[in-house]
Amino acid sequence: MEFELSKEFRDRFQQALDERDNTFIVETLESVQSADISSLLYEFSSEESKYVLDILDKEVHAEIIRDLDSDTRKAFLKIYTPTEIAGVLNQLNSDDAADILHEVPVKAREEVLALIDADLRLQVVDLLRYEETVAGGLMAKELIKVRQGWTVNQCIEEIRKQAENVDKFYAVYVVDEVDRLIGRVSLKSLVLANAFKSVAEIMEEEEVVSVETYLEDTEVADIMQKYDLESVPVVNVNGQLVGRITIDDVVDVITEQAEEERQIMAGISEDVEEDDSVWRNIRARLPWLIIGILGGLMNAKFMGLFEAELMQVTAIAFFIPLIQATGGNVGIQSASIVVQSLANPSFVVEGLWTRLAKVFLVAMLNGVFLAGIVFGANVLLFTEFELSLTVSIALFSVVLFASFMGTVTPMALNYFGFNPALASGPFITTTNDLLGLTIYFFTVNLLLI
Amino acid sequence: MEFELSKEFRDRFQQALDERDNTFIVETLESVQSADISSLLYEFSSEESKYVLDILDKEVHAEIIRDLDSDTRKAFLKIYTPTEIAGVLNQLNSDDAADILHEVPVKAREEVLALIDADLRLQVVDLLRYEETVAGGLMAKELIKVRQGWTVNQCIEEIRKQAENVDKFYAVYVVDEVDRLIGRVSLKSLVLANAFKSVAEIMEEEEVVSVETYLEDTEVADIMQKYDLESVPVVNVNGQLVGRITIDDVVDVITEQAEEERQIMAGISEDVEEDDSVWRNIRARLPWLIIGILGGLMNAKFMGLFEAELMQVTAIAFFIPLIQATGGNVGIQSASIVVQSLANPSFVVEGLWTRLAKVFLVAMLNGVFLAGIVFGANVLLFTEFELSLTVSIALFSVVLFASFMGTVTPMALNYFGFNPALASGPFITTTNDLLGLTIYFFTVNLLLI
Repeated sequence: MEFELSKEFRDRFQQALDERDNTFIVETLESVQSADISSLLYEFSSEESKYVLDILDKEVHAEIIRDLDSDTRKAFLKIYTPTEIAGVLNQLNSDDAADILHEVPVKAREEVLALIDADLRLQVVDLLRYEETVAGGLMAKELIKVRQGWTVNQCIEEIRKQAENVDKFYAVYVVDEVDRLIGRVSLKSLVLANAFKSVAEIMEEEEVVSVETYLEDTEVADIMQKYDLESVPVVNVNGQLVGRITIDDVVDVITEQAEEERQIMAGISEDVEEDDSVWRNIRARLPWLIIGILGGLMNAKFMGLFEAELMQVTAIAFFIPLIQATGGNVGIQSASIVVQSLANPSFVVEGLWTRLAKVFLVAMLNGVFLAGIVFGANVLLFTEFELSLTVSIALFSVVLFASFMGTVTPMALNYFGFNPALASGPFITTTNDLLGLTIYFFTVNLLLI
Repeated sequence: MEFELSKEFRDRFQQALDERDNTFIVETLESVQSADISSLLYEFSSEESKYVLDILDKEVHAEIIRDLDSDTRKAFLKIYTPTEIAGVLNQLNSDDAADILHEVPVKAREEVLALIDADLRLQVVDLLRYEETVAGGLMAKELIKVRQGWTVNQCIEEIRKQAENVDKFYAVYVVDEVDRLIGRVSLKSLVLANAFKSVAEIMEEEEVVSVETYLEDTEVADIMQKYDLESVPVVNVNGQLVGRITIDDVVDVITEQAEEERQIMAGISEDVEEDDSVWRNIRARLPWLIIGILGGLMNAKFMGLFEAELMQVTAIAFFIPLIQATGGNVGIQSASIVVQSLANPSFVVEGLWTRLAKVFLVAMLNGVFLAGIVFGANVLLFTEFELSLTVSIALFSVVLFASFMGTVTPMALNYFGFNPALASGPFITTTNDLLGLTIYFFTVNLLLI
């Protein structure tokens, strides 16, 4: 069912492009979905892609531009004139048009705005007021509003009028005389209801779930997931219906959120992909690397205090990587479990102390087990009983402390309004490296020297 | 708009529960959405929750059970008799009923199956054949099939007949005489079309996107995102329509996928949450910790080879944490950028060598910068010029090697069919720790001693 891109087809298409064989291009792509045309164009240069898009149906052209990822689109639209961009936007819904305008340089933006259809311009100007990360920035203005007193037939007439503008909809929204949202009629009820019934009769009785324009996009996603909605109406502070958000936008929010969290965990400080510029790659990566380096220098300074002990028993140094790696691993595991729990509160709500007691028990058992393995291996491999015992005791303590740090850091970050996932990144590793070293040398001092 | 749970309300509700004040309970919850009732019940014991659910509307009861997360539901349904479980399943769609049956112990499963409605039983038995991670395991059997020759009116009649079973739908599917999928009519077209038009006239002309029963759930999610679908029909190997998947199920797949990746990155080997048992926590965490420990022991053994050098210049040991932490951080950053690129192939497809050249350039620049900082800091803090130079050169080399490892490991894992995210976990850190140490001592040997 999916469109397959073969080497032969690619070559044939290149030939058609070189010969400007528009008939071949248009005919081949006629029955291909726009997402597949997009994949095909990935194989050709920007200029060639634009050549193809220009001879395709205007609507298909606009859909392909809409579905590009933001960075690619920004780069691609550089070869478009403002008039061409306006032509694309005229085919799109207000939310997509506003998203694309956000990416256009400010100067060109005014020009494009002046060139698009008046209706769309009004809607887009309204949407540009909102930040892209709140409900107002996600919503589309296109929706179907009806009144309580209308009949089903009148609703269908209204849908017919709006059908060209609103390509996807799941419900019509019922508003009062000042546009305040009071109800919702699903498309299914409209299909099934008698044509002369009134909206009031078939309107959903439960309170309609809606979101306010300033709600964070991640909260919108949570609400749509919680109530299993395919679209949600957006209201302003006066309860007036101003837009609607559909599930496909929320799927994008969820995907981006997951990507952002992965970047935080990996110690990458801004959104970066492999094909971004070298400079952007470096800028995204250096900050956490420098923090790691500073941690490393502190480690070195700290070890310097124990130079005498290290000269006495060099073997002490052998186990520093073991202690630090284990501390780092335990810390990240603990932090990540807490981050997960903060994201999905569960049925059984345990008190803070019960949770910490459990963390402590898990850490104890893990610690005993790992210290046991290391003790056994050390006695066998290095046969220095006292050092082996010291290392194992230090390891056990490090597991306990790292579990504790890994558990309370994300809770504290969350409490103070930071993203708790920060704790699963290099932050916890750098802290735990220092903590591990301190515990190790403290134990060495106490037991060995 | 959302239901607020206050301390006062909780106490009042507890009182109603203690007094078995059914009138209060039913009346209070009448206009509350099932997702909010769920949040409320989180505050009470299983027995109390069940008491409330039993006196609520059967459909609401079933929805609440359906929306629980799998672990919670498994625990909660233990206090249900097979007859009660069957009562719940009778209110649900076949896909949800099958998911819940998957969680019921095999013995009880047969009993429950015997007790549910005959129609649902047939559908559920069919669905139980599929693994939960393929399209067949995600799909629901409830859908509306129509024939090309039917009129719009006949379609609406069919919808009316099925309306009770199919609660959410976005389209009706057109099949031929042997049930092979040939088209799709959106609900919007049905609403807008003249009642006497035939299905053939309003059916979508483009080929309908469908998935086969054995397709992996993550691929289903990709397809639905790519084509922006709110539902997708599922066909068997003969092209016959056997079910449909809706976007809400796919949102769950995407969320779970993100969670799984976080767990892999954090070195957690099975799905575990804070409120799981201590034993399960330990089982999920120990495997990677042990691998880390083995890596640490190898580190120790390796350093043992350089005991003489370390005794000569103890300060060599000071910089091991710095070298290893940086190697680990660089490796995880690189791996995570590759994992991201593998997940979203982009417009500009660069060849393998171009990509590696860019990775190399970024690593070079990062390396020069970090080595510079460390050299400056070392000369200032430790004033040992030769050692500072050695550490900086080793650090530079470690950054290069760790970038390379971090880049090729996920590519190789992906090539051989493993999850590339494995490379962003403790795997790469453990490997890079050893690699860093080797490079460091090699440099020390070459330049210092």
